[in-house]
Formats: sequence, C-alpha cells, structure tokens
Amino acid sequence: MARTGRRPGISGSREAILAAARSSFADQGYDGTTIRGIARDAGVDPALVRHFFGTKEEVFAAALEFPFDPATVLPSVLGGDLEGAGERLVRFLVTTLETPAGRAPILAILRSAVRYERAATVLRGFIGREVVTRVARQIERPDRELRATLVGSQLVGLVMVRYVVRVEPLASADPETVVQAVGPTIQRYLTGDLTLAERSLQS
Amino acid sequence: MARTGRRPGISGSREAILAAARSSFADQGYDGTTIRGIARDAGVDPALVRHFFGTKEEVFAAALEFPFDPATVLPSVLGGDLEGAGERLVRFLVTTLETPAGRAPILAILRSAVRYERAATVLRGFIGREVVTRVARQIERPDRELRATLVGSQLVGLVMVRYVVRVEPLASADPETVVQAVGPTIQRYLTGDLTLAERSLQS
Repeated sequence: MARTGRRPGISGSREAILAAARSSFADQGYDGTTIRGIARDAGVDPALVRHFFGTKEEVFAAALEFPFDPATVLPSVLGGDLEGAGERLVRFLVTTLETPAGRAPILAILRSAVRYERAATVLRGFIGREVVTRVARQIERPDRELRATLVGSQLVGLVMVRYVVRVEPLASADPETVVQAVGPTIQRYLTGDLTLAERSLQS
Repeated sequence: MARTGRRPGISGSREAILAAARSSFADQGYDGTTIRGIARDAGVDPALVRHFFGTKEEVFAAALEFPFDPATVLPSVLGGDLEGAGERLVRFLVTTLETPAGRAPILAILRSAVRYERAATVLRGFIGREVVTRVARQIERPDRELRATLVGSQLVGLVMVRYVVRVEPLASADPETVVQAVGPTIQRYLTGDLTLAERSLQS
C-alpha cells in the first residue's frame, strides 16, 4: 500500500499519520478523535497532519480511503441552483461507483459499518457531522437534517441493491436510467413537500 | 433454539428440515435448492417438507427466520387499490422493524448479505424470484421489474440508515413521519412517471 518515493521520510510520516488516524477513529469514534491526538500517536507535529490532510474530515476520508472528499464534492454538487441538485447528486454517485476505483472503497466502508458496531459508530459520527450538516446547509428549511438523512437513505439503498446485493434489473440498468428514476426522489427530499415531517418538527 | 413439545419426533424433523434447508441455500443458492433435495438431506419425505412449510420460498423464509412471509404479506399490502400502496408498504416495514422480534432477523439477513458473497447470492435469488416478481405482478407496466427493484432500494436504504447505521434525526423520527416522507417515493416507483426508464426498456 505504501508508495516509495524520493522522500521516504515524508511518505513514512504520512503513513504513520493515517495508521494513527484509523486506530483513533476506531477506538475513540469520530467525535473523540482530534488532529492533536493523531499527531501525538504518529509522533509528528499537528501542523504536519494539517499540511498533509487539512481538516479532521479530510483525515477521515483519507484514512477510510474515501474516493472523494465530501467537503469538496457536496458544496459543488449541491451548490448553486438547488433545482436539479437531486439529479446531479445521483449522477455523481453512480458515476463514481461505475469505476472499480470508486466502487471498492465505498463498498468496504458500507461492509465494515454493517459488520462492526464500532465502524457504524464512526460512520454515524462522520455522516452526522460532515455529510448531513453539509447537505442540510444547502437546504433552507426547518426539517433540513431529516431531509438530509432521507437523501442518505435512498443513496445508501441504491448502492446496496445495485452494487452490493446486485438485484436485477437495477444492477444492470444504464446509469442515466438510474439518474432519471432516482433523481426526482432526491429532489423531493431536498426541496419537495414533506408535510407531516414539517408539522411534527414544529410540535 | 429447538423447542421441546409433546411430539419431539415431529419437532426433530422440522429442525432437521430447516438445518438441511439452511445448508442447501448456502451451498447451492436459492435457485439450486429444491424441496426434494432438502427432504433427502433431512432424511424425510418431500411431502413432510410441504406439510410443514408449503413452498420453497416459505422454507427459505423459515430458514432465514424471516419475521414475515413475502408470499402472504406482499399481495395483501400491495393488493387492491395501488394508490396508497406506497404508504402501506412503508408502514408495514416500519411497524415490523419497530419491534425487536421483527428487527433482529431482518438486520441479520442484511448483515450476512453484506458480509458473505454467498449469502448475497442467496438473497439476490430470493429477492429476484419472489419479492421482485410479486411486487412486479401488482404493477401493470413494461418496466415493472425495474420499478420493483427501485422500491427495494429505498426500503433497504431506509433500514440501513434508520436501523443499522442509525443516523439522526431519521433514526428517531416517529414512524408516521417516516411513512409520510418515504411513502410517496415508493408510490412513484410503483405507479409514477419514470420517463427515461420506460424509454430505455423499449429501445
């Protein structure tokens, strides 16, 4: 896994940071993990962790080998006109998952979350803090966190049925068919009418 | 697990059939398993298997400890007026999953499907033959199998996010809020407009 480069000291530090991060996320959970703690465990300066990865969520994405960084992708996919964002989000996900390089890490994360309670806890913290918050930030509604998790439910289910369990004909449907079928679901969760949900939050 | 009753011979046969069924579904897959083969492995007459369980899918449901039998539930939930079927299906699923007795087996099945390729293969065969076919039978449209798997994708994702990973606020939302939020998604997959999907099936 570790690549050899011209500066093995640097790449050794990078690997040590990722190893410390994986262990901390597993033991302390997402909320209990800090850049400072990771740096201490890796025997490096916190500034080096920030230099390599930036924020805690970027360390997490790198540690889990996320094929993309939610902090970059979500504002870009959801930003601007929220109409059409449902389609854009499904298209981004399906496009990522059509490539083996994008598919493998996402399936690995899902598998470990289903298998290990601790991985589920880490993923829950990460999704809650970074994904739900970021998606919710684009929605100006009182029930935006619920909307964000509903978006997540459809996207996770799509990954499960199309890519993990691979139930036909959804598994082999062409990507654009999936975008047209699922996009409006995501759009409704983002901006549509969820009457009772809004009422129940006000009560 | 085995209950002791007044007729241990009968309950012993029942357990032997279930054990043979679990082993056959795991080794031969859903399609490769037959009532006759299960009976042979269990050392009983095929008529006894049918007497206890009925059809192959009922044996499968019992072997996996499904909390309900799709052959009974799906026609009853989806039958009659297809308008409102989306809500009814989500309400049935959520109601089942709110009880520990209903939740445990469904989570166990999902977990094993994600974890073991062989369990995923069994589940794929079962879902394809019994669930997708049964749901599709209620939909009179050319793309009904695709619609049935889209229904599955939202329901599986709901189970994953609400009950497995337990992301808030969806994890704690009251059941009726979930029914109102997700029901229309299922309804659209059952009877709504999926323009491109229909076009792509005709081409």
